[in-house]
Amino acid sequence: MSSIYEKRGVSAQKEEVHAATAGLDRGLFPGAFCHGYPDPLDPRGDGVLLHHADGAGTKSSLAWLYWKETGDLSVFRGIAQDAVVMNTDDLLCVGAVDGFLLSSTIGRNKRLVPGEVLREIIHGTQACVELLNEHGCRTTFAGGETADVGDLVRTLIVDANITARLPRARFIDTARICPGLAIVGLASFGQAKYESAYNSGIGSNGLTAARHEVFHHDYFAKYPESVDPGLPENVLYQGAHRLTDALTGTPLDWGRAVLSPTRTYLPIVRAMLKEHAHAILGIIHCSGGGQTKCLKFGQRLRYIKDNLFPLPPLFAELKARVPERDFWQVWNGGHRLEIYCDPRRADELIQIASSFGVEGRVVGRTEDAPENSLHLKYGGVETHYPGR
Amino acid sequence: MSSIYEKRGVSAQKEEVHAATAGLDRGLFPGAFCHGYPDPLDPRGDGVLLHHADGAGTKSSLAWLYWKETGDLSVFRGIAQDAVVMNTDDLLCVGAVDGFLLSSTIGRNKRLVPGEVLREIIHGTQACVELLNEHGCRTTFAGGETADVGDLVRTLIVDANITARLPRARFIDTARICPGLAIVGLASFGQAKYESAYNSGIGSNGLTAARHEVFHHDYFAKYPESVDPGLPENVLYQGAHRLTDALTGTPLDWGRAVLSPTRTYLPIVRAMLKEHAHAILGIIHCSGGGQTKCLKFGQRLRYIKDNLFPLPPLFAELKARVPERDFWQVWNGGHRLEIYCDPRRADELIQIASSFGVEGRVVGRTEDAPENSLHLKYGGVETHYPGR
Repeated sequence: MSSIYEKRGVSAQKEEVHAATAGLDRGLFPGAFCHGYPDPLDPRGDGVLLHHADGAGTKSSLAWLYWKETGDLSVFRGIAQDAVVMNTDDLLCVGAVDGFLLSSTIGRNKRLVPGEVLREIIHGTQACVELLNEHGCRTTFAGGETADVGDLVRTLIVDANITARLPRARFIDTARICPGLAIVGLASFGQAKYESAYNSGIGSNGLTAARHEVFHHDYFAKYPESVDPGLPENVLYQGAHRLTDALTGTPLDWGRAVLSPTRTYLPIVRAMLKEHAHAILGIIHCSGGGQTKCLKFGQRLRYIKDNLFPLPPLFAELKARVPERDFWQVWNGGHRLEIYCDPRRADELIQIASSFGVEGRVVGRTEDAPENSLHLKYGGVETHYPGR
Repeated sequence: MSSIYEKRGVSAQKEEVHAATAGLDRGLFPGAFCHGYPDPLDPRGDGVLLHHADGAGTKSSLAWLYWKETGDLSVFRGIAQDAVVMNTDDLLCVGAVDGFLLSSTIGRNKRLVPGEVLREIIHGTQACVELLNEHGCRTTFAGGETADVGDLVRTLIVDANITARLPRARFIDTARICPGLAIVGLASFGQAKYESAYNSGIGSNGLTAARHEVFHHDYFAKYPESVDPGLPENVLYQGAHRLTDALTGTPLDWGRAVLSPTRTYLPIVRAMLKEHAHAILGIIHCSGGGQTKCLKFGQRLRYIKDNLFPLPPLFAELKARVPERDFWQVWNGGHRLEIYCDPRRADELIQIASSFGVEGRVVGRTEDAPENSLHLKYGGVETHYPGR
């Protein structure tokens, strides 16, 4: 239980959601990262149908804040990318890297969110789709729904949904992660060749905690619409920084750093699967749950992560502000994607990532154990997380 | 421009959304009710892929209110059905009545919406899926995403997304609506044989206006979380009724009446298409835009609706409170689905609806005209709407 999450009305481990969804159909591969289903129009065929929903979460509240402070509308393009990539990069974990059909859902408070913001989000979605297509990850943008729901939404909420289909033989089942594998982590920070700016690495998870740990309390009074007014004031905007203060060690200001659009790993994973599909046993997107996400997958495994990336600047600040144990289960800390592979292929996979300008490294390994656990070591400090 | 909508931060005609989405790919049938796309994994095949997103809108705010007042959790099952049916009943307009893959997205304020509410929504979604399957409309529930986003969402927002595929020859292209057709309306109210209670007919459109026109101002002070606090107080909860006051002429209280789960027409349309597909030129779901929805489709058509259903009780109250002109473009007023058909087949279609316990009637017809317009006549009053 992560107290930095709970005090702000967020459940890091989603216990209530898991309880509510217990008993639902888990599809063809119950232990996989995403659920795959028989094609309802071709149930005997060999295709696995994937249908995924996710969104930018409370990052849109920060984009709204940044726009109000600076007049810079372009941050909403990043929100569009966040919503798309939170879907695509879950789906790539089961091997889907092509043939996506995408729609988006925007709920706005029309009083606070004018048409020019919608335009940025929709054009940003389109731009993200074009980027994926340029890298051979064919994607069709099928529109979506924009609803004026000010009685529900303080500012705006942006979600996306993706359908994809892949042959059963190409489905990567996370349940197959076994002892003796290398864990290749792919950096979430830096600037990939297909990105137009430095990326802080934060993605779209832990944004409620990050916003309130980083930004100055002045924003509480100035922008009450950006938070839940029912929370105690002393958990909201408790940080030291203004949105436009420079984040040392990066070309970004703090606002832009926390708003860094979620990096997609699609072009890289597509290239990896083309060459090394047989060497890849599992892929994990370190989204909700951060570095502890792996605990949900596989059986009787000790996950050892003892060679993590040195923390990039934004994560270094966040880590300094929260308990060690919380930090790793809220944020990715430096790598947002893990490839579980034959150790003899790790160098080649790292080479592929490098060709896209993204650093990879063997961050750890799997061992056999009586039950799942994670042993994480960083800066001489060891943290153990039991399986759930 | 509907003033009863605008004053509460809702755009009935979605001008800003249309401006923001201008230029997006409209797919294979640009004039159709839903956009259909080539299957990205089988682009030369004959299948049309459909991907749809919609939700329950601000109806969830009312469910939350009703639950807080009465302790009755079951209203959230209706919200789940609303989110599903707002998708399925758009999709049936292009002929998709089977083979649905469904996911849902729930954004909640965890402080106000506990796990038991999530459970009702997810079980309600499952129950709705089971109902569709029982009626031969095969649907798979592929889970979804539940996010704790209290900084964005006052109470909760519930959306759903559906993918379906159908052969190109079975796609119903609303652009084919032509002069000389009968408009068969299917009642939105009453109790279908596949429903467990009387239905007010409201569906999931115009809920912001309906909530504030119907319910008593006491709820404003008691449940500030249920509205946008930035709106002028004199547009919020301006009605005469308490949630548990009886709605005369129905077995429901006012709360339950406005919360009536959106009726699905799927079982009926499935049966109609089985027998009479060639006689059906277009199907229109009178959702956003109400009775004026038709104006968006077809060309050079005068839509004449002069034989509408007598207003059922909830709509009668709403009509008495707002300008005639606004009423018909916010709510469906009695029929939420229109079948545009060969007039010689109208009786048979009405017969099919009747076999499911749903009343049908020829509510009007199409004529040729220089440009689209709607001529609506009810209770001796004629209202004209120009095409957009």
